[in-house]
Amino acid sequence: MFSPFLERVRTRAPLVHAITNYVTVNDCANALLACGASPIMADDPGEVAEITQGCGGLVLNLGTLHQHTIPAMVSAGQTANTLGHPVVLDPVGVGASALRTDTAHMLLETVAFSVIRGNISEVKALALGRGCAHGVDASGADAEDPLEETIALARAFARHTGAVVAVTGATDVVADASHAYCIRNGHPFLSRVTGTGCMLSALIGAYVSASPGQVLEATAAAVCAMGVCGELAFARMTPQDGNGSYQTYLLDALCTLTGENLEENADYEVR
Amino acid sequence: MFSPFLERVRTRAPLVHAITNYVTVNDCANALLACGASPIMADDPGEVAEITQGCGGLVLNLGTLHQHTIPAMVSAGQTANTLGHPVVLDPVGVGASALRTDTAHMLLETVAFSVIRGNISEVKALALGRGCAHGVDASGADAEDPLEETIALARAFARHTGAVVAVTGATDVVADASHAYCIRNGHPFLSRVTGTGCMLSALIGAYVSASPGQVLEATAAAVCAMGVCGELAFARMTPQDGNGSYQTYLLDALCTLTGENLEENADYEVR
Amino acid sequence: MFSPFLERVRTRAPLVHAITNYVTVNDCANALLACGASPIMADDPGEVAEITQGCGGLVLNLGTLHQHTIPAMVSAGQTANTLGHPVVLDPVGVGASALRTDTAHMLLETVAFSVIRGNISEVKALALGRGCAHGVDASGADAEDPLEETIALARAFARHTGAVVAVTGATDVVADASHAYCIRNGHPFLSRVTGTGCMLSALIGAYVSASPGQVLEATAAAVCAMGVCGELAFARMTPQDGNGSYQTYLLDALCTLTGENLEENADYEVR
Repeated sequence: MFSPFLERVRTRAPLVHAITNYVTVNDCANALLACGASPIMADDPGEVAEITQGCGGLVLNLGTLHQHTIPAMVSAGQTANTLGHPVVLDPVGVGASALRTDTAHMLLETVAFSVIRGNISEVKALALGRGCAHGVDASGADAEDPLEETIALARAFARHTGAVVAVTGATDVVADASHAYCIRNGHPFLSRVTGTGCMLSALIGAYVSASPGQVLEATAAAVCAMGVCGELAFARMTPQDGNGSYQTYLLDALCTLTGENLEENADYEVR
Repeated sequence: MFSPFLERVRTRAPLVHAITNYVTVNDCANALLACGASPIMADDPGEVAEITQGCGGLVLNLGTLHQHTIPAMVSAGQTANTLGHPVVLDPVGVGASALRTDTAHMLLETVAFSVIRGNISEVKALALGRGCAHGVDASGADAEDPLEETIALARAFARHTGAVVAVTGATDVVADASHAYCIRNGHPFLSRVTGTGCMLSALIGAYVSASPGQVLEATAAAVCAMGVCGELAFARMTPQDGNGSYQTYLLDALCTLTGENLEENADYEVR
Repeated sequence: MFSPFLERVRTRAPLVHAITNYVTVNDCANALLACGASPIMADDPGEVAEITQGCGGLVLNLGTLHQHTIPAMVSAGQTANTLGHPVVLDPVGVGASALRTDTAHMLLETVAFSVIRGNISEVKALALGRGCAHGVDASGADAEDPLEETIALARAFARHTGAVVAVTGATDVVADASHAYCIRNGHPFLSRVTGTGCMLSALIGAYVSASPGQVLEATAAAVCAMGVCGELAFARMTPQDGNGSYQTYLLDALCTLTGENLEENADYEVR
C-alpha cells in the first residue's frame, strides 16, 4: 500500500527546497537524491521566494536556527502556501531555547504547514508548551509516554494546526485529525547517527511533493520507508562497523529500496 | 598527457582557499586533501583577503549564496587577482534566482577568473541570459544541446571573459577561445550524489594552482580525473550500494588515482 | 588507566554544546554520538546561553569564524564558566588571519578554558605570537620542533592560561603546569581527512564533561583514544580505500572502541 508513494517520487522526481541546518544538510541533500527527488538548499531572504517558486515542496528545519534566516523561512513558507506547494516543518530542538520555541510558534501562525515532524519532546513542547528535551533528542521520560497518549496528542495537534503530525520514536505515529498510522519499523541505531530525523523530514518533503493530494498516506509512507531503511542498514553491519558505516548504509538503503522491499518489511496499523 | 598535472598537485600540495556553500563543503575539503592539495575555507569579509594571500588559488562557489558573503567573494577575488593566483568560479544555480544571476554577473565584472565551471544550464544562463535550470541541475532540454553548440558556447564565453570555460555533462567541454577538450569520462551516477560539481570545481582549483601557466590543460586534466574517478567508483558498487557508498568510493578514487590510471582511462579529444 | 574515562562518557552520556565551523560539523556531531555523548550545535547569540545551560560542556572552534558568531562564543563561554561547565577552545587557523588571532586572544581574556587544543603552529601563534601555519595545518618547520620544546611550550602556556594544553602532532603533548602526557598513538593518514582535529576537540569536550574533576587525565584519554582509533581505522584500509573510507572507519572505530582496546593500544608516558 505504501509502494505507489515511493514509485511516484522516483517518477516525478520532485525538486524540494530546504531551509535547513548546517549540521546535517549534506545528508538531507543526499537523502533526497537517494529517494529519487532533487534538492536545492537556499536560505538568503533575497532569493528564497524565487527559489521555492521553481520547486515542488519546501522543508523548514530549525536546527542551528539563525535570526537572519527566520525572515527567509516566512517568505519561502508564504510563497509555497500561495502556490499550493506542501510545506514541512521540522522543529528541531524546540523547547531547548526561547528562540526556537518562539520561532516555531510564529511560523505556525504565519505559514500553513502540510506536515509537522518531530520527536515526542519536540511535539509536546510545541503542542503543550512543555516536554523535556535532552538537547535535540527526546528525553527518556517523554519517550515512555504510552502510545495511546501520543496518538491523542498527535491527533489534537493535527486538528489544531491543520497539518499532518508525525511523532517519531520507537513507534512512529503519523496522524491527521481522524486517523493515525502507528509504524513499528526502524532501529535504535538510527539515533546513533546525527541527522536521521532531518533526513526523514526531507524525505517527507519529497513524498508529499510527489503525492500532494494524499498528505497523510504519503507522510506515513516516508516514515515507514525510513524505518525499513534503518533496518536494512543495520542488517549490513559487521562487528567493526559503527555509526560511520551505518550512515553510509542508510543512504544506500534509501537509494536501493524497492517498492517490494517496502511492502514486505512495512509493519504498521491504522487506528 | 594529463598525468603530469596530477603529479604536480601531489608534489606542490597547493593550499586552496574556498568560499563555498555549506551543503558540500566537507566533500570539497576532502576532495582537495584526496588529490594532494590542502583546503582552507574562510568567508568572513574581515579575513578573506589575508587568508587568500597565504594560498595558491581561490574557488568561489555560489551554492547557498548569502548576501553577507558577497563582499568577501569580491575582496578575496580581487586580492587573488593582484597576487596573480588563479581564481575559479562555480556559479551554482545561476539562473534560478536574480540574486545568484546578479551576483555572478557582478563577479564577472569585478574579478578576473581563470576558470568558470558549470553545467550547461548554468553556463547558458550566465553567457546568454537564458537556460532552464532544474534547481542546481541542468535541465533535460539543455542537456540535449548538440556537442557542437556547447563547444561554440564555451569558446565564445571564454573569449568574452578571458577565462577557461568548463561545461560539464555527459560529455564535458573545456575550452579557451581557440581550443576545446571534449572529455567523455564520467558516469551518470555522479549526479546521484550531491556536490560532485562542487568537488570538481575545488579539484580544478588545485590543478590550476599547481600548474598556473597551463590553465586550459590543467582544467581539462582535473575534469578528466574526476570523470575517471567517477568510473572507478562505480566499478566498486555492489547491489546493496547506493549513493552513500558511491560518495565514499569517489573520494577514495580521488585519493588513490595514479597518473597511470588517469592515462589509461582518459577518453578525450581536442578540437 | 584511560579506560575509566571512556566508560564514563558512555555511562553519563554528556550533552555537549559546540559552536563550530560548517566544514566539519557533521563529523563532530557523529564523533560525539560515536563516543557515547550527545551533540547540540547552536550559534545564534540569541540562544547560546540558554542552550549551553542544558548541556554538560562547551566546545568553541574557530574554523570558518564569522564576526557575528563571536558574541555567541563569549556569551556561551561565560555562561558555561558561571555554571562550572568545562569549556574547550580549538583555535583553528589562528595565526592565519588577524581576525582569528584577535578573536582567540579576546576569548582567552573573557572566558576561562578548561582545555586548549591545537596543532603546534596554532599553539605557537597563540602562546608566542608566532608560528608559521600552512593554512589550517601545522607547518613542516614547526612540526620538527624537538619534543622537549613542545612540552616546555605546552606547560608554560598551561601555566599562563590555567587550561590544560593539548598540542597534537606526530607525538601529542597534553600538559598542565606540572605534568605532561606524551602520547605516541595516531597515524599520519589522520591528516588526509578534514576535521580530525575538530573531531578530537569535540571528543575532548565529551571526555572532560564526563570527568570534570580530572581535566588533564580526561584530555589525555581523549587524545589517546583518537590516536588509537586512527590506527584501528588505518588497519582496515584496503588498496582501493582512500580518505573517504578512512573517514568512515574512523567514526566506526570511535563507536566500537572498548576500554580494553584502548588500554592495549595506548602508547604514552608521563613527564
